[in-house]
Amino acid sequence: MEKQKIAIHGERLKQTIEDFADFGRTENNGVTRLALSETDIKVRNHFKMVCEELGLTVKWDDMGNMYATLEGRENDKPPVVIGSHLDSVEKGGRFDGVLGVLTGLEVVRTLVESNIRPRIPVVVANITNEEGARFEPSLMSSGVMSGKFDKGNMLRSVDKNGITFAEALKESGYEGRKENRLTEAEAFLELHIEQGPVLENESIDIGVVECVVGMCCYEIEVIGDSDHAGTTPMSMRKDSLFASNNLINEIREKMSKLDNNLVYTIGRMNVSPNIHTVIPNKVIFTLEARHKEAAVISQVEEIIQGLAETEAKEKCDVTVKKLWDRDTVWFNNKLVDALEKSCKSLNCSYKRMASGAGHDAQFIATYLPAAMIFVPSVNGKSHAEDELTAWEDCERGVNVVLQTVLDLTMN
Amino acid sequence: MEKQKIAIHGERLKQTIEDFADFGRTENNGVTRLALSETDIKVRNHFKMVCEELGLTVKWDDMGNMYATLEGRENDKPPVVIGSHLDSVEKGGRFDGVLGVLTGLEVVRTLVESNIRPRIPVVVANITNEEGARFEPSLMSSGVMSGKFDKGNMLRSVDKNGITFAEALKESGYEGRKENRLTEAEAFLELHIEQGPVLENESIDIGVVECVVGMCCYEIEVIGDSDHAGTTPMSMRKDSLFASNNLINEIREKMSKLDNNLVYTIGRMNVSPNIHTVIPNKVIFTLEARHKEAAVISQVEEIIQGLAETEAKEKCDVTVKKLWDRDTVWFNNKLVDALEKSCKSLNCSYKRMASGAGHDAQFIATYLPAAMIFVPSVNGKSHAEDELTAWEDCERGVNVVLQTVLDLTMN
Repeated sequence: MEKQKIAIHGERLKQTIEDFADFGRTENNGVTRLALSETDIKVRNHFKMVCEELGLTVKWDDMGNMYATLEGRENDKPPVVIGSHLDSVEKGGRFDGVLGVLTGLEVVRTLVESNIRPRIPVVVANITNEEGARFEPSLMSSGVMSGKFDKGNMLRSVDKNGITFAEALKESGYEGRKENRLTEAEAFLELHIEQGPVLENESIDIGVVECVVGMCCYEIEVIGDSDHAGTTPMSMRKDSLFASNNLINEIREKMSKLDNNLVYTIGRMNVSPNIHTVIPNKVIFTLEARHKEAAVISQVEEIIQGLAETEAKEKCDVTVKKLWDRDTVWFNNKLVDALEKSCKSLNCSYKRMASGAGHDAQFIATYLPAAMIFVPSVNGKSHAEDELTAWEDCERGVNVVLQTVLDLTMN
Repeated sequence: MEKQKIAIHGERLKQTIEDFADFGRTENNGVTRLALSETDIKVRNHFKMVCEELGLTVKWDDMGNMYATLEGRENDKPPVVIGSHLDSVEKGGRFDGVLGVLTGLEVVRTLVESNIRPRIPVVVANITNEEGARFEPSLMSSGVMSGKFDKGNMLRSVDKNGITFAEALKESGYEGRKENRLTEAEAFLELHIEQGPVLENESIDIGVVECVVGMCCYEIEVIGDSDHAGTTPMSMRKDSLFASNNLINEIREKMSKLDNNLVYTIGRMNVSPNIHTVIPNKVIFTLEARHKEAAVISQVEEIIQGLAETEAKEKCDVTVKKLWDRDTVWFNNKLVDALEKSCKSLNCSYKRMASGAGHDAQFIATYLPAAMIFVPSVNGKSHAEDELTAWEDCERGVNVVLQTVLDLTMN
């Protein structure tokens, strides 16, 4: 059988996506499936059953990560892994995460129905608690697998009802053995929705992801005086809100002169005392910025550090605190090239791009060869009930992964 | 006895201020004396006792307003009233309100010890619940007296523990008869701390208050899209916080071109969803502006109304809602002149000014001749434990009121 003749079954993929969305489907056709919730346990059981029916062996490790293995001809060799996550945020969509797991399932189904026995094993993986929506932080289990996070700390993470991750994991029945962790692989491939508007906007089928961008996150505190709004002349005020407004002007002006691909966001702002008749004496706001080049992030940090001494703060005191940062993670060159080659061979339009969002593949990439592709998000929406990727875009993306798996496993 | 020889007793005034501050004194030397609280009832009892010891007759009306009357030679004539309020905000100061009541007490003490029998009665008044800190709104009782507020609604005002004003009033023992309300007066004089920095800054002893400025208060809602902070290019965003920043720039630029005495404040701002990794999709902020001239307030309102259509809002939707406004209240010309004359005769430096804050006298001025003077506030502070007016400034202000009362009652 010629490998270029093989394609996935689009209608089956669509049906499977909808079947999985039934686990936690909301009234507005979204999904709520928090990690290790009753709904997540049900979808895990369903995933396990479907995989076993297909003849795969399903195991799970000490973080509850599930691995469904299709044996290869050389079973002692590291596998190709296709995976993502089955958990969702509260009132999320039907595609974020689950589409990457079902990509693996559909690829394996296609191999099995085509009677293809791959050279090396092919594993479909479900990584636990990517979203961090119930138990912080996000990327929890890939963080533990890659040594980025301390497992003990993660086990103590508590949900809003006071249940620890350790308790929820034990209760779920998916606490497995540490020996089952993914420690070697020929490739870790993750297909994900873009969660941004770029592909749709440029009418491009596939994003071949080169990296997950680095970022920095700061908190800026502006202290003034909470004088009476009626009795304090404008010139005698120390208005922390107006000073913050000046600082934001300065940030926007300077940032806009840096690279076009830089994104920066002031997402959180709290004003004190927040009473309409009192001049605000304290404003705290966050500023996060993302770019793939460390040099650009450095320029951003210089701008932010400069806020403490800028004249724009007028008579207020400004304190700048770095909350955290992370470096850009570059995916495995050969795998990125392989995914690009698959796009070409399937006549898909594509662009190499950076991921602005975080994904499990970025932690796994620190110890295993890994790469990702994106499929378009309608209106760039994700983490929302109206999150949508067209069925043909899903199908196209899974075919790109299939083609890449064939390339990696048939020779 | 020549009237110009008479002066109040500064040391006694200081001692009385400190005695009254013992009712609710906080550990940081401020005062918490919420309206009709146990502490307020105690200070009322003390005030009543002190007045009665002085030979005054103390009555109270159906809103709990207290009137301590020194008889005059012509007791059927409308009195001169000196008053303010004994209630405070939570963790307020030792001067706001109480100083105006104790001004009356000290003036009457001085008259009594000088064996002066005034032509018409002199009344020391304590107006209930000026602050509105326990029962909203502020200026509650003067609002009812002047017909601005509906008494039934006020009685139903509820504190944070679910107690109504009606219940608290009845419980206090200070629910009197409606016939006792202040319905006529030769003058209502209120001495108050400035609550602003102008007098101190300009080294002026006394502010002769011409009016309480009019104001308008608006709420501005800016709606954008809560896209992912990492995946949405800057040019594709509908960032309600950046749009708000633009709007505030426009407000400040245009407002600064209006009159120098205009004050405007953005005191409350709430950002949604207020998560550092999410582009804000909603910002709501208030804008209030105060000026004595209606024409200036009109210009302000034009600027605010224009925000809904300005290009500065970029791709966001802006809704402008007027919350409320109030017109400038002008004090009685003759009384303002009389107070000014007293300043001159006592060699006090003074300036005619507008009050940016609200006071009971402004409501009373709508149906009786009323006027006010201000004494300096150190650092412009009020409604704070470190609220301070120098003892000599208190003494000077009370002497100005004494002189004016003498002028009004000796001829």
